[in-house]
Amino acid sequence: MPRLCKPAMNAPEHVITLEETLEFAATAHAGKPQLALALRLIRNTGVRKRHLVQPIEKTLHHPGFEARNRIYEIESKKRTPQVIEQALANAELRTRDIDAIIYVSCTGFLMPSLTAWLINNLGFRSDTRQIPIAQLGCAAGGAAINRAHDFCAAHPGSNVLIVSCELCSLCYQPDADDIGSLLSDGLFGDAVAAAVVRGEGGVGIDLERNASYLIPDTEDWISYAVKDTGFHFQLDRRVPGTMEPLAPVLRELAKDHSWDAGNLDFYIIHAGGPRILDDLAKFLDVDREVFRHSWSTLNEYGNIASAVVLEAARRLFEEETPAPGATGLIAGFGPGITAEMALGTWAADGIPQTFA
Amino acid sequence: MPRLCKPAMNAPEHVITLEETLEFAATAHAGKPQLALALRLIRNTGVRKRHLVQPIEKTLHHPGFEARNRIYEIESKKRTPQVIEQALANAELRTRDIDAIIYVSCTGFLMPSLTAWLINNLGFRSDTRQIPIAQLGCAAGGAAINRAHDFCAAHPGSNVLIVSCELCSLCYQPDADDIGSLLSDGLFGDAVAAAVVRGEGGVGIDLERNASYLIPDTEDWISYAVKDTGFHFQLDRRVPGTMEPLAPVLRELAKDHSWDAGNLDFYIIHAGGPRILDDLAKFLDVDREVFRHSWSTLNEYGNIASAVVLEAARRLFEEETPAPGATGLIAGFGPGITAEMALGTWAADGIPQTFA
Repeated sequence: MPRLCKPAMNAPEHVITLEETLEFAATAHAGKPQLALALRLIRNTGVRKRHLVQPIEKTLHHPGFEARNRIYEIESKKRTPQVIEQALANAELRTRDIDAIIYVSCTGFLMPSLTAWLINNLGFRSDTRQIPIAQLGCAAGGAAINRAHDFCAAHPGSNVLIVSCELCSLCYQPDADDIGSLLSDGLFGDAVAAAVVRGEGGVGIDLERNASYLIPDTEDWISYAVKDTGFHFQLDRRVPGTMEPLAPVLRELAKDHSWDAGNLDFYIIHAGGPRILDDLAKFLDVDREVFRHSWSTLNEYGNIASAVVLEAARRLFEEETPAPGATGLIAGFGPGITAEMALGTWAADGIPQTFA
Repeated sequence: MPRLCKPAMNAPEHVITLEETLEFAATAHAGKPQLALALRLIRNTGVRKRHLVQPIEKTLHHPGFEARNRIYEIESKKRTPQVIEQALANAELRTRDIDAIIYVSCTGFLMPSLTAWLINNLGFRSDTRQIPIAQLGCAAGGAAINRAHDFCAAHPGSNVLIVSCELCSLCYQPDADDIGSLLSDGLFGDAVAAAVVRGEGGVGIDLERNASYLIPDTEDWISYAVKDTGFHFQLDRRVPGTMEPLAPVLRELAKDHSWDAGNLDFYIIHAGGPRILDDLAKFLDVDREVFRHSWSTLNEYGNIASAVVLEAARRLFEEETPAPGATGLIAGFGPGITAEMALGTWAADGIPQTFA
């Protein structure tokens, strides 16, 4: 059964604390009517610090879409090799063992996708499938795991590398002062993450079932306005309330698998914001503490988009060793509004093939 | 076995002929050193006419990236429902029977992807998987067929809808006068296409094997420069020569399947340009005529990017009825430089389930 191995994550070196974010917001919105709201929104994110690919002064300056996208290209090429190397080591595989690369990133746009550069520069085989997904936003972490699961099921014995490169600070729009922008200015952080789904062997989460769900008629609740200045993040006030309709979907998915979504051994949940995690705990009737890896990710790095589920999973691997057979749920949420969900079981029965 | 059913295609109503293209080019480059080259490149495309989503006067005017992308959104919403309806009818399925939508398009950028709008507005189920791919360019038609194949293999009995929306004229850059732009000004056309890959039953091409290949170190041969004015298509002079390294890859793929790539019953090949088709015929040692559906697509619509393979396949269904067991090759080529390849067999054994 396809198995999600331990992810790797890299948080960039430029750190901005909550206090600094509040100071910058106080300056940016000084004397403007939205000041009090901006400060309240930022304080309520639960984000203590974030990591950025550029120093804050550069981050706050918008050099134009073209220059921004060039920074995306440079930074993604600089930062992905390291997490890929670590993810491969975690899976006890080499680049030559990888059959497909799923690259998810909504914060820059390259064509060809970075997959071509990775194949050429890191030693992947020329017949490696490239599956770049740019338009699922924060849900793409869950989608990547699910499509990797599907690929391994379709091509037994194959291995899939997932790479998530979310440089959210490159979508900062200095002139935006709508509520979604004010919130996101304090919420999103940068991170690069990777993980391997092995077709056979390894240690990690056996992917047993996956599903997707689109909340009807919410297309414009999370979206990009595409402008000459790049991607402008737009967030509807109703988004934090979406766990109420999604919790029953998660319950149903677990029930179809003869599991109880309120009584699993581990949870890897997209940390969209504090209300998402609080509400999901409430509607699934679980202790807030079961989402601890998502909370830690949010507190320490902010919402790192599609990388959240990989980082929360990394913490599960790092901080706990679930018992074989432990049951778990993975869920990413993002634009659509889309939920990408998976059910899996902790497994460690295999001897890694490659080095056997 | 997953089966590719008859595609549907819609060519927009605004037509520009080769003669008109030459006239516009003569005006645009009047008195400039590149004039003769531009006219020669355009004449050599083999494109007799193209179809555009806007009248030519509007096409030639660049209203800015934001306005362009809004046109993309409007036109894609206007034009995709019809081809989807036709593709579903061709497959004898209803929207409710579709388990995943693969949406490929490199000529506009929406987040969420158009998949969310399609699900909400055309009656697809809320649990339909969304697989939007924007960064494989012209290779995405082949990639979509291959990922649909994989999805059906991973989820037996499921059905996948492929939608290709390529509004290439919305990437026209009036100020660009490099050789790649001069060529593409006469080569690319607009089209919207769709097809269903059925998990079981139907009439069409049984998808037996798929593969991908990246020609090493050619990442920058076909690419977008992402600028404040949107996507700028960049083409290297060496691209037309890429069939020489790719033909052996196609031969090897067929050989692994105990087939001879030079002796198949049908060929559905990306019509990137006349040299691509001529060279591939030469290096596979097949008659030029075996690519007739690709030639017709190129002549009548230009290079319609990821929609080419769907339209060429539609012509195969429309104009011939291959014998059951007839063997064929599908190949899309695009940025990377990536080839997405599939081998399949004509099949008509199933009674469509839904209406059985």
